[in-house]
Amino acid sequence: MKKFINKPENFVNEMIQGILAAHPDKVKVVNNDLRCYVNAKSYKGKVGIATGGGSGHLPLFLGYVGDGMLDGCSVGGVFQSPSADQMFEVTKAINQGSGVLYIYGNYSGDIMNFDMASEMADAEDIKVLSVVAGEDVASSPKGQEGKRRGVAGIFFVYKCAGAAAQEMKNLDEVKRIADKAAANVRTMGVALSPCIVPEVGKPSFTIGEDEMELGMGIHGEPGIERGKLKTADEIVQIMVDKIVDDLPYNSGDEVAVLVNGLGATPKEELYVMYRKAAEILKGKNIKVFKVYLGEFATSMEMAGASISLLKLDSELKALLAKHANTPFFEQVQLEV
Amino acid sequence: MKKFINKPENFVNEMIQGILAAHPDKVKVVNNDLRCYVNAKSYKGKVGIATGGGSGHLPLFLGYVGDGMLDGCSVGGVFQSPSADQMFEVTKAINQGSGVLYIYGNYSGDIMNFDMASEMADAEDIKVLSVVAGEDVASSPKGQEGKRRGVAGIFFVYKCAGAAAQEMKNLDEVKRIADKAAANVRTMGVALSPCIVPEVGKPSFTIGEDEMELGMGIHGEPGIERGKLKTADEIVQIMVDKIVDDLPYNSGDEVAVLVNGLGATPKEELYVMYRKAAEILKGKNIKVFKVYLGEFATSMEMAGASISLLKLDSELKALLAKHANTPFFEQVQLEV
Repeated sequence: MKKFINKPENFVNEMIQGILAAHPDKVKVVNNDLRCYVNAKSYKGKVGIATGGGSGHLPLFLGYVGDGMLDGCSVGGVFQSPSADQMFEVTKAINQGSGVLYIYGNYSGDIMNFDMASEMADAEDIKVLSVVAGEDVASSPKGQEGKRRGVAGIFFVYKCAGAAAQEMKNLDEVKRIADKAAANVRTMGVALSPCIVPEVGKPSFTIGEDEMELGMGIHGEPGIERGKLKTADEIVQIMVDKIVDDLPYNSGDEVAVLVNGLGATPKEELYVMYRKAAEILKGKNIKVFKVYLGEFATSMEMAGASISLLKLDSELKALLAKHANTPFFEQVQLEV
Repeated sequence: MKKFINKPENFVNEMIQGILAAHPDKVKVVNNDLRCYVNAKSYKGKVGIATGGGSGHLPLFLGYVGDGMLDGCSVGGVFQSPSADQMFEVTKAINQGSGVLYIYGNYSGDIMNFDMASEMADAEDIKVLSVVAGEDVASSPKGQEGKRRGVAGIFFVYKCAGAAAQEMKNLDEVKRIADKAAANVRTMGVALSPCIVPEVGKPSFTIGEDEMELGMGIHGEPGIERGKLKTADEIVQIMVDKIVDDLPYNSGDEVAVLVNGLGATPKEELYVMYRKAAEILKGKNIKVFKVYLGEFATSMEMAGASISLLKLDSELKALLAKHANTPFFEQVQLEV
């Protein structure tokens, strides 16, 4: 196992210690629990937004804690859910009297624990609402959207909801916006190589030297097609067609695009992929408002990529354009 | 070869086409030559700053073209120098009447071509000065700094010189600042795996399953020690000691730190590394002004990392803190 680590069992805590050492002005932890990670700043009366999930996906999940995005994140072990207790501690820490919105991916452990945390909050009269993001079109067919996995597209949900909360909208409004973003984002991924969970020490799955798996999830969940590696253009054509077909698009519609590297894939290749995506979208007369390209949701050192489209209306567009500032994501206000 | 590519010989051009498609408001090319890449904006009377170098290192080199950083970049094939003609075309395009500063890495092909471009500019009465950055302490011993390879630390030279030019300082001043930044930055790297140049199709070197190479260059140039993979803390101790020992440091000195991933190494591991670096610097009472962590200079999908320190004085600190905005690097003004 070739990794820069010390003891595998200390990997997650040492990573968080590194983040805290690097960004002491931006983030902190609650009650000295490294797994209860929150924004160093707070805004009186602002709706709190919390997420949570397993480690190994940086910048997901904790990387989006910061101004204009999220207020807190409970952090699990690699590919493991954090506990309900940790989620509840984060909830209490970020509640500014206006309630807390949970936004998290559609994974059974996370759902169970966030539901428990929500009940614990309710018992202490903290109002909590939840939005479960699941937008991977390869993980479940159209008509069964509720079964879909959450992957990189949750970034768009964080961004829009985070901007709404920063504008001091109330909890119902922030939830409405998060729901709208979640309903308008679609993702599809492709994997070329596995990753190694430090405490396991061996690859999470095997894949042939000349193979790819279309639609594979970020923990190595099965995709929809394993086959010979195709060209970048062929792969992108399949992905973008499947994403666009999943929502009704009209000529002239506008989107934000996220081309996400899963870990080992260089930006050079992501731009080769975007070149084709831009061509396809232009052919359908779908306008691109903003491109995000890089690592937004990873599987450690997995080689692979995903493409997400967020279908925009004027409200989502204005929120997406807002300034944000976290240790992992900075955006100056975009022109709308 | 597992890459998202089409024809290997089109890799670089298609990558640039993707970048132009993604960021049409920020960057453009000169004379329809994809390899002559410049900022879409220009500022009358501002000193132009140009760089250039081989592809395969994104965000190096072209990724730092943008506001507050560089004005233009000539782009070579993967790990190949661009031509003197391309450098000259970029020079003409970015000259705003106040001359042009070349900042590039210490590689023989680049030096030869930039020297030729400089002569071509001279013949057309464009004043050009050059700064060659070489800060890899593993590539040549102390006392022979002029022979050192340029690696990730050139980011700091771009950032300080770019901020100075944006403040409308004159060419001699911008060169003085670039020289000062270059003289105060030190880097050391470590590689765990090779990368594959698309047109070659096979790994650039081999390294054992349980080995690392300390001090390896970003094209796979030999390092100073190949041996069994050590723990993250042991590796960082060697690297930071070697970097700090190379410059005179006093208790209370201040630095900016760059923890750079070479391609396949996850941010999780870079933060585990930074945790140790922060501890060592604290032990020496060297203060950290700002941490940059992520991919700043890569070798495509190589696994590995480098650490750079920039020793700060009040002038470099103020320049480093300035706002910058390129397709690959955004920074809001830092508090000084």
